[in-house]
Amino acid sequence: MQQQISVVTLGVADHVRSKRFYGEGFGWTPVFEAPGIVFYQMNGLMLGLWATNELKGDMKRPGSVKPGAFALAHNVRRKEEVQPLLDRLASAGGRILRPADAPPHGGFRGYVADPDDHAWEVAWNPAWPIDEHGHVTWGV
Amino acid sequence: MQQQISVVTLGVADHVRSKRFYGEGFGWTPVFEAPGIVFYQMNGLMLGLWATNELKGDMKRPGSVKPGAFALAHNVRRKEEVQPLLDRLASAGGRILRPADAPPHGGFRGYVADPDDHAWEVAWNPAWPIDEHGHVTWGV
Repeated sequence: MQQQISVVTLGVADHVRSKRFYGEGFGWTPVFEAPGIVFYQMNGLMLGLWATNELKGDMKRPGSVKPGAFALAHNVRRKEEVQPLLDRLASAGGRILRPADAPPHGGFRGYVADPDDHAWEVAWNPAWPIDEHGHVTWGV
Repeated sequence: MQQQISVVTLGVADHVRSKRFYGEGFGWTPVFEAPGIVFYQMNGLMLGLWATNELKGDMKRPGSVKPGAFALAHNVRRKEEVQPLLDRLASAGGRILRPADAPPHGGFRGYVADPDDHAWEVAWNPAWPIDEHGHVTWGV
């Protein structure tokens, strides 16, 4: 079975609010929009923002909750980009969970919650190369 | 800002249990293992399984909970692969949330919870091509 994640789907309550965070904060443009759903083409996978109630119904899990015990990460190429991006995401409707600092395992990172409380790490990890297509590869 | 997810990190309570699910269920092999953390090289991003308490501490979010209001998807190339993979994941310690059926938007899918209750969709979506490297592209 190919080691592959095809889609990350986040439950969202207000698509206008979320599109501001992902658009003004990250600068990302949707590849598709319909009522209740927005998709972004990412680096070899899709990011979906789906109305939370529809997602819950689709996965037959009415009791799913936020914030979840998971994090998504967006890595940047230079340490100096980390805190400004966290700040921009906060200005676009996010909430800083942890300002950028250096973790014990190296690099530099901080965390921000999106408007629905989903956690994003913004990180500089010099050990993991990012190619021109945004594909991230293990390296030490 | 590149439209890019670098890492998906899931909080896990028992790495032996989780590695069985991801190893025997999906057939995936870690690229790195250390106490409390396992990484899998995916299609242009990393999947990390991190001890929940360490993840919560790192993101300064002690109150994160499971199950979260999100889903990850693994798409397969043929409709006939969906239910057998769901069954294999259940045999490897997962729990079926929704047996495979056809959603209104087309294709074929079901959901399974991993041992920490993180939701995975297993889907056949003929509209979204998967290339040889596992990269998934928007298409309609």
